[in-house]
Amino acid sequence: MSSTRRIAVIIGAGPGLATSIAKQLSSTHSLVLLSRSLPNSLSKLNLPSTIPKENILALSSDGSATSLKKAFEDLKKHWPNGKVDIGIYNVNQSFGLRDFLDSDESQLRAGLESGVVGGWNFSQSIIPLFLSNEPDEITGARGVLLFTGATMSLRGGAKFSSLAPGMFARRSLSQSLAREFGPKGIHVGHIILDGIIETDRVKEMMGEDKDHSRLNPDHIAQTYLSMINQPRTAWTQELDIR
Amino acid sequence: MSSTRRIAVIIGAGPGLATSIAKQLSSTHSLVLLSRSLPNSLSKLNLPSTIPKENILALSSDGSATSLKKAFEDLKKHWPNGKVDIGIYNVNQSFGLRDFLDSDESQLRAGLESGVVGGWNFSQSIIPLFLSNEPDEITGARGVLLFTGATMSLRGGAKFSSLAPGMFARRSLSQSLAREFGPKGIHVGHIILDGIIETDRVKEMMGEDKDHSRLNPDHIAQTYLSMINQPRTAWTQELDIR
Amino acid sequence: MSSTRRIAVIIGAGPGLATSIAKQLSSTHSLVLLSRSLPNSLSKLNLPSTIPKENILALSSDGSATSLKKAFEDLKKHWPNGKVDIGIYNVNQSFGLRDFLDSDESQLRAGLESGVVGGWNFSQSIIPLFLSNEPDEITGARGVLLFTGATMSLRGGAKFSSLAPGMFARRSLSQSLAREFGPKGIHVGHIILDGIIETDRVKEMMGEDKDHSRLNPDHIAQTYLSMINQPRTAWTQELDIR
Amino acid sequence: MSSTRRIAVIIGAGPGLATSIAKQLSSTHSLVLLSRSLPNSLSKLNLPSTIPKENILALSSDGSATSLKKAFEDLKKHWPNGKVDIGIYNVNQSFGLRDFLDSDESQLRAGLESGVVGGWNFSQSIIPLFLSNEPDEITGARGVLLFTGATMSLRGGAKFSSLAPGMFARRSLSQSLAREFGPKGIHVGHIILDGIIETDRVKEMMGEDKDHSRLNPDHIAQTYLSMINQPRTAWTQELDIR
Repeated sequence: MSSTRRIAVIIGAGPGLATSIAKQLSSTHSLVLLSRSLPNSLSKLNLPSTIPKENILALSSDGSATSLKKAFEDLKKHWPNGKVDIGIYNVNQSFGLRDFLDSDESQLRAGLESGVVGGWNFSQSIIPLFLSNEPDEITGARGVLLFTGATMSLRGGAKFSSLAPGMFARRSLSQSLAREFGPKGIHVGHIILDGIIETDRVKEMMGEDKDHSRLNPDHIAQTYLSMINQPRTAWTQELDIR
Repeated sequence: MSSTRRIAVIIGAGPGLATSIAKQLSSTHSLVLLSRSLPNSLSKLNLPSTIPKENILALSSDGSATSLKKAFEDLKKHWPNGKVDIGIYNVNQSFGLRDFLDSDESQLRAGLESGVVGGWNFSQSIIPLFLSNEPDEITGARGVLLFTGATMSLRGGAKFSSLAPGMFARRSLSQSLAREFGPKGIHVGHIILDGIIETDRVKEMMGEDKDHSRLNPDHIAQTYLSMINQPRTAWTQELDIR
Repeated sequence: MSSTRRIAVIIGAGPGLATSIAKQLSSTHSLVLLSRSLPNSLSKLNLPSTIPKENILALSSDGSATSLKKAFEDLKKHWPNGKVDIGIYNVNQSFGLRDFLDSDESQLRAGLESGVVGGWNFSQSIIPLFLSNEPDEITGARGVLLFTGATMSLRGGAKFSSLAPGMFARRSLSQSLAREFGPKGIHVGHIILDGIIETDRVKEMMGEDKDHSRLNPDHIAQTYLSMINQPRTAWTQELDIR
Repeated sequence: MSSTRRIAVIIGAGPGLATSIAKQLSSTHSLVLLSRSLPNSLSKLNLPSTIPKENILALSSDGSATSLKKAFEDLKKHWPNGKVDIGIYNVNQSFGLRDFLDSDESQLRAGLESGVVGGWNFSQSIIPLFLSNEPDEITGARGVLLFTGATMSLRGGAKFSSLAPGMFARRSLSQSLAREFGPKGIHVGHIILDGIIETDRVKEMMGEDKDHSRLNPDHIAQTYLSMINQPRTAWTQELDIR
C-alpha cells in the first residue's frame, strides 16, 4: 500500500459476493461497506480476521441520496486523507418472481430503486471523488466503478416484469457513465452474473453443486479484481461470468 | 367495423406519431387518447375531420395508476359495450441530454416514470381487458400491446445517464410481458425508432429532410398497423425502424 | 400491375415459406424461383393455379456466382423489359445438429455456402439491377432485398458449431448491405424466424400444433410483404417472428 | 512450472498481440507459434531474449486442416510428454474495407477462411488434446480456448460486407463450443477488441496516441491471462476491451 490510504467503497455489502470482493481488495485498500443493515450486521459478513478491523468502516445506506451523502461525509471524517478510487455497486434485487397481474406497483418501484436509482446516487457521490484523484501510476485510472448485473439485465422473462426493468436500467447507466467518464480516466464496468451464486444459504436449500453449475463468489471476485487492475489502454466495459 | 365497437387506447398522444397511429386505426377502432395535457390540447393533435368526433375520447392521464384507473373507468362508462383490444404506450422521454454531474435525481426519476412506470401501470389496466376478450377471428389475438422504443433503448451514451435507463427498462417490460402473456393470446411488441421523427416542429428547427434521413410518422404508423394485423402464428416481438 | 412488368426473385424456393411469399407477391410481380432442384421440382411447390404460369420462371441455381450469372441472364432474356425490384434470400441450412468432434469440415463449409456465400453472390447479381431502377413511386425504394434468418443467427448452441456460423455471417451481410445501400435507396432487411415453421412434413412428423407454437408460413409471408411495402422514411432492418 | 511441460498454442502469431500473449504465458508454458510465414519470420516477432529458445516451437500453418494436422504432429514429436492446455485463435482478417460492388467473391472467402474455418480446424485439433487432460488443479479446466474478436464481430458496416461475415461466424463458433465443451471442463472465450491496437506500424502511420484511444497489446494480453486463470466456477465467455 502506498503512503496514501486507498479506499474502496462497496454498497450492497452482504455475506456472499461483496465479502469475497472485500477480501480481494483488503491487501491494497481500506474498505467502506454500505448496506441497509450495516453496521449492525457486520459480524454476519464473515470477513476474515486477517483484515485489520481498523481498515473497515461499515455504514448504513439504503441507496438514497441523503443516506449516501451522510455516508460519504462520515467516510471523509473517518479517513480525511484517504483516496477513494474503487466503487462497487452490488445491490441485489430482492428476488421474487411474480405473475404480472399479482404484482403491485411498489414492487416495480423497489426494483427500480435497487436496480438503478441507488446506483445513480452512488455514482453521483463517488465520481467527483475519482475526478479529484491523480491517475493511478500503474493503470492510469482515476477510479474504477463496477456494477453487478445478472442474466435479467439482458433478457426479460415471464414473471420478471418487476425485476428486470431495474437491471436493464442499471446496465444502461453503466454504459452511459463509461462513455461519459472513460475519456476522463474513470473505468466503468458491468459484470453479468449468469447463474446462481453458491452461498451457505444456497447450499442448505439446494444441496451440493455436483455439476459445477453454480458460481463461486471468491472466483467471481477474482474477475472483479482483474478488471480493477486493467490498464487504461485495455479496459473492459462488460463481461459475463457463467 | 363489426357490430361490437372496437377500441384502441393510445397513451402519449401528441401531434406526431400518436396522431398518425390514430389515423391508421380510425377505420376499425374508436380511439381513446390519453396524455397529461388532454383533453384540453385535443385540437393540437391535428386529427383529420374524417374521423367522426364521436369515435374519439380524449382523457387526461399522467401515467400514474390513479389517473389510469380513472381513465379506464371513464372509458367503460362512455362505451360500456366496447371491446378494448389495442393499447399503444407511446410516452416520450422529455428529451434533454445532460452531463451526469449537472443532473438531478429528479431527472432520472422523471425518465423512469415516463420510461417504464407509466407503461407498467398502463399494462396493469389494459391486460385484464384483453384477457376478457375472445380471440380475434383473423389474428387470433385477444389484444395487442405495443411499446415505442428508441435507439437509447439499446445503447447508453454520454449524457444519456438519466434518459436511457427508463427506455432500457421499457424494453425489458415489453419482453417480460410478451413471454408471460403471449401464450395467453396477447401480442406484446416493441418498436425501436432509430432516428429523428419528422414533425412540423423539427422541420421548422432543422429545415427540409433532403437526404431522407428522418422518419415519417405516417410511415412508422403503417408498421404499427402491420404488427397489429399479424396473426398469432407469426408475431413480431421487436423491430427497428430507421 | 403497372405497364412495366415487376419481377421478384426468390432463391431457396421450396414448398414452405418461399411458396407463401410467392403467393403474396403474385398479384403485383412476376416470379423468378431459384433452387438447386428447380425447375424439375416446380410442381412440388404447390403454387396455386390462380398464379398464371406465364408469370413464373423457375430456374436452377446452387447459389454459386456462375449459376446465378446464368440465371439472371436467362431472366433478362425471358423478360427483357422487366424491372427486378425484389430479392428474397431464403436458402435454408440443410439442418443437422451434430457433435462438434463428429463433424467434418465439409459440413461447416456447406453451412457457410448456404448461409452467406450464396447470399453474397445473390446480392452481387441483384443489387446492380436495383440501382438501375427509378425509386418506386410509393415506397421510394429502388429495390428490396430480404434475408431469412433464424434463432441460430443470434446465438450459438451445443451441436450448432457447423450450422450457426453461416447464419451469423448472413446476418452480418444484411447489416453491411443495409448500411452501404440504404442511402442509395435499397431496403435491406433480415427476418429472424424464432421457431419451427409449420409445413405438411412437420405436421406428419410432430402432429397438430395444439398450443400455437409453430410459425405459419402464410402468416410469416404477410410480414415479408409488410416490409416490402414500407416507405423509405421508415424502413425496418431487422425483426423477429415467433 | 509443474514437472509436466505445459504447452500453449497460438495461431495468428505476429509481432503485436500474439507476441504479448506469448510473453505473458512464457513463465508457465512452452509456446507453439503458428502462422503462414513462420518459422521463417520468427525473428520479426520480437520475442524477448528472456524466453528460452528451447521453449519456443515455431511452425507453419495456414489454418487448413492439413497444415494443422501436420503442425500438431510436429508438436507431439517435439514435446512428446507435453500437456497442451491453452489455445489462442488470433488470426486477423487481412484488413481491407471495400465497396461491395468492387469486391470479389474471393475476398469474402478469404474472410471466412481466416474468420472461422481456420478456427474450426484449430478447435478440431486442440479440443481432443484438452479432453485427454486431467482438470487443472487450480482452475479445474482441462483446457482454455480463446478467440480474438473485433467490433465487426458484433456489427456490420458499409464496406464490411466481405470482412464482417467471418468475424460474426467466429463469434458464433466460440459460443457453440463454449456450450458444448464447457460442461466437459473446457473454457471457451471470445474477446472483442473494440479499437485499434497500438503497434510500431500503427505508430509510424498515425503518430503518437495522445488521447489514450488505442489498445496496448501488452495490456490486452493481461486480460487474456486473467481469463486463462479463471476457475471453472466463474468463467467468462465474452468480454470487450476498448
